[in-house]
Amino acid sequence: MIIVMNHGATTHEVEMVCQRLQKEGFSIHMSEGVERTIIGAIGDKSRISLSTVESLPGVEKIVPILQPFKLAGRDFRQEDTIIRIGDVEIGGGQMQVFAGPCAVESWEQLMESAEAVKAAGARFLRGGAYKPRSSPYSFQGLEEAGLKMLARARELTGLLVVTEVIDPGSIERVAYYSDVLQVGARNMQNFFLLRELSKINKPILLKRGLSATIEEWLMAAEYLMAGGNYDVILCERGIRTFETYTRNTLDLSAIPAVKQLSHLPVIIDPSHATGKWQMVRPMARAAVAAGCDGLMIEVHPNPTEALCDGPQSLTPENFGALMNELRAIAEVVHKKL
Amino acid sequence: MIIVMNHGATTHEVEMVCQRLQKEGFSIHMSEGVERTIIGAIGDKSRISLSTVESLPGVEKIVPILQPFKLAGRDFRQEDTIIRIGDVEIGGGQMQVFAGPCAVESWEQLMESAEAVKAAGARFLRGGAYKPRSSPYSFQGLEEAGLKMLARARELTGLLVVTEVIDPGSIERVAYYSDVLQVGARNMQNFFLLRELSKINKPILLKRGLSATIEEWLMAAEYLMAGGNYDVILCERGIRTFETYTRNTLDLSAIPAVKQLSHLPVIIDPSHATGKWQMVRPMARAAVAAGCDGLMIEVHPNPTEALCDGPQSLTPENFGALMNELRAIAEVVHKKL
Amino acid sequence: MIIVMNHGATTHEVEMVCQRLQKEGFSIHMSEGVERTIIGAIGDKSRISLSTVESLPGVEKIVPILQPFKLAGRDFRQEDTIIRIGDVEIGGGQMQVFAGPCAVESWEQLMESAEAVKAAGARFLRGGAYKPRSSPYSFQGLEEAGLKMLARARELTGLLVVTEVIDPGSIERVAYYSDVLQVGARNMQNFFLLRELSKINKPILLKRGLSATIEEWLMAAEYLMAGGNYDVILCERGIRTFETYTRNTLDLSAIPAVKQLSHLPVIIDPSHATGKWQMVRPMARAAVAAGCDGLMIEVHPNPTEALCDGPQSLTPENFGALMNELRAIAEVVHKKL
Amino acid sequence: MIIVMNHGATTHEVEMVCQRLQKEGFSIHMSEGVERTIIGAIGDKSRISLSTVESLPGVEKIVPILQPFKLAGRDFRQEDTIIRIGDVEIGGGQMQVFAGPCAVESWEQLMESAEAVKAAGARFLRGGAYKPRSSPYSFQGLEEAGLKMLARARELTGLLVVTEVIDPGSIERVAYYSDVLQVGARNMQNFFLLRELSKINKPILLKRGLSATIEEWLMAAEYLMAGGNYDVILCERGIRTFETYTRNTLDLSAIPAVKQLSHLPVIIDPSHATGKWQMVRPMARAAVAAGCDGLMIEVHPNPTEALCDGPQSLTPENFGALMNELRAIAEVVHKKL
Repeated sequence: MIIVMNHGATTHEVEMVCQRLQKEGFSIHMSEGVERTIIGAIGDKSRISLSTVESLPGVEKIVPILQPFKLAGRDFRQEDTIIRIGDVEIGGGQMQVFAGPCAVESWEQLMESAEAVKAAGARFLRGGAYKPRSSPYSFQGLEEAGLKMLARARELTGLLVVTEVIDPGSIERVAYYSDVLQVGARNMQNFFLLRELSKINKPILLKRGLSATIEEWLMAAEYLMAGGNYDVILCERGIRTFETYTRNTLDLSAIPAVKQLSHLPVIIDPSHATGKWQMVRPMARAAVAAGCDGLMIEVHPNPTEALCDGPQSLTPENFGALMNELRAIAEVVHKKL
Repeated sequence: MIIVMNHGATTHEVEMVCQRLQKEGFSIHMSEGVERTIIGAIGDKSRISLSTVESLPGVEKIVPILQPFKLAGRDFRQEDTIIRIGDVEIGGGQMQVFAGPCAVESWEQLMESAEAVKAAGARFLRGGAYKPRSSPYSFQGLEEAGLKMLARARELTGLLVVTEVIDPGSIERVAYYSDVLQVGARNMQNFFLLRELSKINKPILLKRGLSATIEEWLMAAEYLMAGGNYDVILCERGIRTFETYTRNTLDLSAIPAVKQLSHLPVIIDPSHATGKWQMVRPMARAAVAAGCDGLMIEVHPNPTEALCDGPQSLTPENFGALMNELRAIAEVVHKKL
Repeated sequence: MIIVMNHGATTHEVEMVCQRLQKEGFSIHMSEGVERTIIGAIGDKSRISLSTVESLPGVEKIVPILQPFKLAGRDFRQEDTIIRIGDVEIGGGQMQVFAGPCAVESWEQLMESAEAVKAAGARFLRGGAYKPRSSPYSFQGLEEAGLKMLARARELTGLLVVTEVIDPGSIERVAYYSDVLQVGARNMQNFFLLRELSKINKPILLKRGLSATIEEWLMAAEYLMAGGNYDVILCERGIRTFETYTRNTLDLSAIPAVKQLSHLPVIIDPSHATGKWQMVRPMARAAVAAGCDGLMIEVHPNPTEALCDGPQSLTPENFGALMNELRAIAEVVHKKL
Repeated sequence: MIIVMNHGATTHEVEMVCQRLQKEGFSIHMSEGVERTIIGAIGDKSRISLSTVESLPGVEKIVPILQPFKLAGRDFRQEDTIIRIGDVEIGGGQMQVFAGPCAVESWEQLMESAEAVKAAGARFLRGGAYKPRSSPYSFQGLEEAGLKMLARARELTGLLVVTEVIDPGSIERVAYYSDVLQVGARNMQNFFLLRELSKINKPILLKRGLSATIEEWLMAAEYLMAGGNYDVILCERGIRTFETYTRNTLDLSAIPAVKQLSHLPVIIDPSHATGKWQMVRPMARAAVAAGCDGLMIEVHPNPTEALCDGPQSLTPENFGALMNELRAIAEVVHKKL
């Protein structure tokens, strides 16, 4: 790390900073400019917190040199991570589409969705059994009954199942019924939940928080990996900005950014990002063109009857048409879909 | 609610929307402008979700008329809520200061902090035993040992204790050792945690999420209240914006905004918002001048040795000087401190 | 417009609002709900400002029904606007690429760029002669000498020229030497400049402001159109968000949003949005897949010697490879490039 | 500046960066860590642009050490700047209030406002003659007729006048009729206008742009100062965030931030920031408590008849009451008002 001292920092202050760093095992490189003294500290950054150094007298600011994530970073692993569930792969040139209704509402609704998803050629069925809703008065999901329907749909269709887990106490139950566990945007920094999920051996689909920087998102992945679960799929689903025409602002530049910083696969959820089904199709195409590893898309047999997120759900017909477009674009960017 | 139909919506589409709303018990007021048909729907909004109506053919947008929160709103309760813990009151003209270290690090550090807090005239000791940290490699708190120290400091000083709870499984334990339970910014929309906390009978200090709108924050309070816990203290601690000079942007206009919309007390945490101790003092004064019901301030006997958030912690001396300024400003705005 | 009265608004207050609106020629539709009185006002909104109505006693909020833009909106014109410069078209299925260096630095640099642009098949040469720079100490452009070089490059290559105008006093000069005049992001709400540009008969490329909503952007286009200049090309170039990994956040959902609200062509500038040449290529592909009408891309014969924006400039080789990818994706979305 | 090389940067790449910097007169300090090579470059940063260095092969990122502003910074001038207009001072312990209507609408409206402003003890009359409005169909100001009314009101009341200038062509005219020239938020980065204003010898009130960082705001001040006009008053008026309850988010932490970075006076405009008169009073009090050098406040004799910004204007009565509160708080923070 680099320590920039104040304009008027005294020789004593500079010495005290150096001594403190040396005590923690750092070696020191001093550089005195005309207007500022700069201290380079080489060593194991985990020995001292940045904020401790920052609060020493005479220090103006600290500039960390290395990324704070280790296991999630490209420095740790050069080649792309490929996650395998049975014979299905995500990452490394193989895209996957996770599609289905926002919430599991009934057996009929789920199966109609699942059949549409399968017919269009996707391999994963999504559907919420536990729904985090901003109002306590909204439909909160069918809970375990919903999980059972998902598992039954999997049996009947051969689709793999991804569903959200919202509390540490139900991890085991959700893992029992599903193939991939989703951590929602609002729980991205629920570190207790992440720590518990790091102990299971199923892949985690980690949504980016509404106002999470890419670095914070990768640090959330680091929680999962540091605990032993290396199968992390990152999912961008829109960030919060000043613009209100769309529900959130889909940050597609997160795709090349994550690819540069990390080896983990990254997928895009255009449904939650835009909140409008008319925008899902162009944004899904754009995501594939930008090089994502997959998509999460809401599909509902009858959007005007949906208990949640109807306006952003595609009909089976629209979903099928979209899948055809996506395959054509995937070819241009040399990916399999 | 008001439904605005598209420019080219057909008579049939208008009729279908009206029929659907009437089926759910709404009465309908039609208003045909030159360019748009507007449908006013009067009735129990909980009978149908906004998004369902929004996804009906021909609908351009929905305009909700009433706030989505009920129990947290001024319509429900006109007078300010006053929360009482023994003989200590928060709200309704009585301000409170919650002060102490970011994290409980040791018995000596905690007691020095507690004595400084008490000497300056504050009534609440803050200190984290469970610390949500953005890195899995950072100090995560002393956990139950920290809780015990807090409880012992309370016995010795007579201060009341506020500390954070980060997982549903430890609510009972945290509630046993403390007087007020804090929900951190990153857990503001951890709805499962909120639901569990709604069942206990201790006050909850609910921090505003980094990118939560005031409406979402009040909806989080609504989760607590809908479950039966009416003692909610709202705490603004900075929102995420494009500005990077401060850690977050302290939104002091949240004070008059919350006062207008809600009857709940609202306090301000200038330490986390700014991240710099030099800015804590002016921002704390500003918060009192703007009419807040209290403050949460980090105080550490030796900030340069703090295990977390040293740069934003006040020394006991600075804290004492600040308390004197706050009392003078409180008088101008007719509050007790 | 719809006026929502306060919970406790008196009959007198409601009457005064109605009288005021009727005086301005509005017809009134009253709707009394259980908790709020709603007043629908039908008439010519330009007769009274929303803020005047909002400040009447008893008024809680105003909900405008129609978009504030008229000429720029789809209600005014259903079919896509196609802008023609000689035999070159933008919009309505025909994409265009505007490429070249950030700034005109020298004749050699400009001509090398222009030849690369032409060789790759683009029709427009971009290059700044007047550069708005955030520091007064940075290179501010070659000014008129730069304009003359652009005009000479046009003669030699047959490319059309787009360049920025930063002050009302030089509009005539810039218009003389170029084919399309660019309004930079920082001048999007320089209404005086817009009004002057509305009087000329050359197309305007209007960049979206860093924190402009889509509505404000279309209102800036409205300034141009209201003054008589209907040839407006909208250009999204990244908005300001909390994310710092990219210079700005490219808002590709602005493409379908603008397409829904307006008939004007919309192009994308991935160079300024991302600030990193490695991200330009995936984001350019994504823009085409999302349905844009064109792209603005920085190309420099030697990015490491560029006087500005080197890190975001493509080499001629990379630009040529990108153009091939873009053509393949354009075909998938049925556009010509 | 500090140059961080890529993880895998070659010795050749490191050498090329060093050679390039040495060619521009920098002296070099190398520091080879375990994972990254760091190059410290000491010299005159204006010799080479950061972006040029950033685009050299093998460079990961550049960390500037010094602030980009010089004349506006505390390093250049330690003591607070005090701006004097006749016997009236701003800065250095003396606060000033700039009050009056959003726009000059008529002689009667202006004089009623001016008398209210004077009666309450403020020294500056504000009022717009040229109004930058987001819609071309809104009232755009009385222009020169408005300027003349302002000048006449100054004669009759002895108040000093501040008014906005929106185009380079009218600077002379506006300067003739007023004492302080205002640059609006939307023109903060209209660098051409700033350069022209740097040549006049009247103080400039420079509003912060809606999405301008504090650094960018100070760089805009630097444009004025670099051209020779050192009398710059900074004015925070709310930044754009995701929150929609207030028009913008008033960033009061800009006060201590500016005080730390710069010697220029900083004032606060709570009227434009909040957009609601009920919030102006608490936010104005907060600004004084936070240590601002003054306030800009909209006052209108009859807000419900205002042609613009009625909802955020104080009545003369409310303004008088506010001034009394502000004086009491100013005393606590040892300022004169």
